Amino acid sequence: MAHQISLTELRELIKAGKNQTILSFISANHPVEVAELILQLSPEEAWHVLKQTDPHLSAEIFSHFDREYQIDMVDVLTRNEAAKLISEMPPDDRASLFKRMPEEKKEIVLPALARAEREDVRRLTSYAEETAGAVMTSDYATLSPIMTISQAIEHLREVAPDTETIYYAYVLGAHRKLNGFVSLKDLILARRDARVEQIMHGDVISARVDDDQEDVARRIQKYDLLALPVINKNGALVGIITHDDAIDIITQEHTEDMEKFMAISGSHADAMYMKTPVWEQFKNRFPWVIALAVLGLVSGFIVQRFEGLLVQFTILAAFMPMLADTGGNTGSQSATLVVRALALKEISPKDILRILAKEFQVAVMLAFLLGAIAFVRVMFFGDGTSIPDSFSLLRIGFAISIALGLQVITATLIGAILPLGAARMKWDPAIVASPALTTIVDITGLIIYFMTVKLLLDI
Amino acid sequence: MAHQISLTELRELIKAGKNQTILSFISANHPVEVAELILQLSPEEAWHVLKQTDPHLSAEIFSHFDREYQIDMVDVLTRNEAAKLISEMPPDDRASLFKRMPEEKKEIVLPALARAEREDVRRLTSYAEETAGAVMTSDYATLSPIMTISQAIEHLREVAPDTETIYYAYVLGAHRKLNGFVSLKDLILARRDARVEQIMHGDVISARVDDDQEDVARRIQKYDLLALPVINKNGALVGIITHDDAIDIITQEHTEDMEKFMAISGSHADAMYMKTPVWEQFKNRFPWVIALAVLGLVSGFIVQRFEGLLVQFTILAAFMPMLADTGGNTGSQSATLVVRALALKEISPKDILRILAKEFQVAVMLAFLLGAIAFVRVMFFGDGTSIPDSFSLLRIGFAISIALGLQVITATLIGAILPLGAARMKWDPAIVASPALTTIVDITGLIIYFMTVKLLLDI
Repeated sequence: MAHQISLTELRELIKAGKNQTILSFISANHPVEVAELILQLSPEEAWHVLKQTDPHLSAEIFSHFDREYQIDMVDVLTRNEAAKLISEMPPDDRASLFKRMPEEKKEIVLPALARAEREDVRRLTSYAEETAGAVMTSDYATLSPIMTISQAIEHLREVAPDTETIYYAYVLGAHRKLNGFVSLKDLILARRDARVEQIMHGDVISARVDDDQEDVARRIQKYDLLALPVINKNGALVGIITHDDAIDIITQEHTEDMEKFMAISGSHADAMYMKTPVWEQFKNRFPWVIALAVLGLVSGFIVQRFEGLLVQFTILAAFMPMLADTGGNTGSQSATLVVRALALKEISPKDILRILAKEFQVAVMLAFLLGAIAFVRVMFFGDGTSIPDSFSLLRIGFAISIALGLQVITATLIGAILPLGAARMKWDPAIVASPALTTIVDITGLIIYFMTVKLLLDI
Repeated sequence: MAHQISLTELRELIKAGKNQTILSFISANHPVEVAELILQLSPEEAWHVLKQTDPHLSAEIFSHFDREYQIDMVDVLTRNEAAKLISEMPPDDRASLFKRMPEEKKEIVLPALARAEREDVRRLTSYAEETAGAVMTSDYATLSPIMTISQAIEHLREVAPDTETIYYAYVLGAHRKLNGFVSLKDLILARRDARVEQIMHGDVISARVDDDQEDVARRIQKYDLLALPVINKNGALVGIITHDDAIDIITQEHTEDMEKFMAISGSHADAMYMKTPVWEQFKNRFPWVIALAVLGLVSGFIVQRFEGLLVQFTILAAFMPMLADTGGNTGSQSATLVVRALALKEISPKDILRILAKEFQVAVMLAFLLGAIAFVRVMFFGDGTSIPDSFSLLRIGFAISIALGLQVITATLIGAILPLGAARMKWDPAIVASPALTTIVDITGLIIYFMTVKLLLDI
């Protein structure tokens, strides 16, 4: 499975025009690995390599490139070469390529495709992003309910080369209505003269074209499916989503969640760290950082508002970082747990009272622990600081601990409420997690801190 | 697909002993859905339901329960009932159950299993957690290279009922050495009198028993496989890992990454938010929060060290929250990107210089922007604060902006260095992300802040 050839060697073969050797390298390796190596060549060199193989294999290797490289490569092909290559691609990859292609290039390539493929592209690209329709493929096997098992197996043999999977076949009635499905295992085990309708599973787990892609991927995961049929509002079969697409969707959603948690915007489905130029990185990262910094200015105003208190008790400034960090950490914890439980559909915004009750109890325990740490800290190391004579260190330590405890409880509850609120508004709960939350609980924390201390120290 | 029966109705059926109705409910629904409903019953009630079906189906439904409920249920069974149920489970689920079973219960159930199954459990539970060996199953189909295609298909028909998948079959030589594999599609398409060795793929993508489970799942994802064979150090086939296990492994790793990012410890493979008691939640959450709070005390000491400066310039306190938040946000961004690129094996610790060069450039751009915001903030809203007459607001604004800019640059670089360092030490890079990082850049940030301001204001 290791590359039997280095990039330099491959470049030399291309230069020397040793096409037979190139062809034998391609045949000896997995298309995924051939694609990985070729990706490092220029599009012209890559096309020289792909040209050596049959159209089916070259389209398969081409499908494993990232979309950007595919678009670069289409640029160096003639219109007919491009049409031939693209027409052999799996329909879902092909549709995804057309969606990312610049309009003017699309207008050149699309008319060169055969009519059936052109219409397939039009249909598959017509669904909204992130829906089942946008990720499904149209290469699936169908059977008629009145076929015998022998006929069905013979039919699957015939369509196998052009079909994404023959392990599941869908049984269609009039108007392509999805009546049932059979697995190839069912067919192999059945009597040869039985009819498909006698052995098919009538109660098919399916998705609607406008279902969210992550819900669909989770359904494939839940029921351990190889593929999930996608139907339109009339119950007609329009495509299937396969298990390998489900893994990719789940990985992609995870990446997006992680990025929302860490305040990076932009779509990174195909993005790679080293390949993304510095300027792109900056554009993806600055909006969040700036927005949060501007929001963070509010905490500056609050500190300014309580300037007098800080001048009198500089020890209060020493606890500001701990207050902010602790609020951020406890809030992030509850937000993370709630976001995940929402994503797994284990809880819904309706459960808000039960969730808050639970978070409140955890928060009170954490508040006692953290308050105690702060108290010890004040008593042991507060001696050096200048405090007005009329206040004892004990009283100040007590006030700071109470304030910190209240901050822990509020931050934890805010951490739970924000994602629930977002889910209620049909926004993505992950968007309000971590950095935005940290900045918000900084603000509430400072208010709680100064107010509590003022109140308890009676100033 | 909807439950055709409510929990209350099912309870009534159990109480009334209407076993025929229970059986028809089970047959009419998908095992996953039956399992979901039964999970809400008591283990005794659940067993009453399962008892109505054939052993194969009841074991399948039982396999869909979470491990804790499985253990609770084994408690209410006689030794023979338990052995019968467990022996019908898929081998990987069975091994996973035994791994989580208390020692004393294991010693009761294990001897009641048939010898072959007992040894299978012993073997599958002997591999280290999170390795390929620990997640593989032993129900796979094998063929001999000299079988004809007809014989091979006939053999797969025979083993189909007890095999996880017959869509991939592995071709074994002497000593179970993995020589190749064929898909059922290959077999269906081949001439009936050809030999398996003539059509098999010799260059099999496989895993070693001690490979990391995530690497293995990613391999299944990369090559779009239905299953991946696992071999021991002699090249003998010992198990397979299927596509549905790959999705579950990837989901589990996502969850663990997310939790590390958000400072929640504990293994949550089966944990559910609502089911986890408050006390458990507390135990999972407090160690991180406390550790970080203790670490955060260091920033308190730094602030105390510069108390004099704060008394003189209270405006400095107003920018402390923005300093901390901005450092945390920019540091988390670079850490997230580096952690992900490391996870995808796109970069390695060796690339540290190129990564730092890139992060440095992005950081400088961010530093200018954020410094400018801070400067504007000081100039426009700094009027109210008391500053010593010998210092102009302009000079203070300049000093604060420079300090903030330096904080952004250091935090970004620290955010990149920490995960790279962790990866170098073979630790999990995700562990140093977000909350730990935030606390560290708070500390470095305060030192930079006070030192810079002291230097630039010449005090």
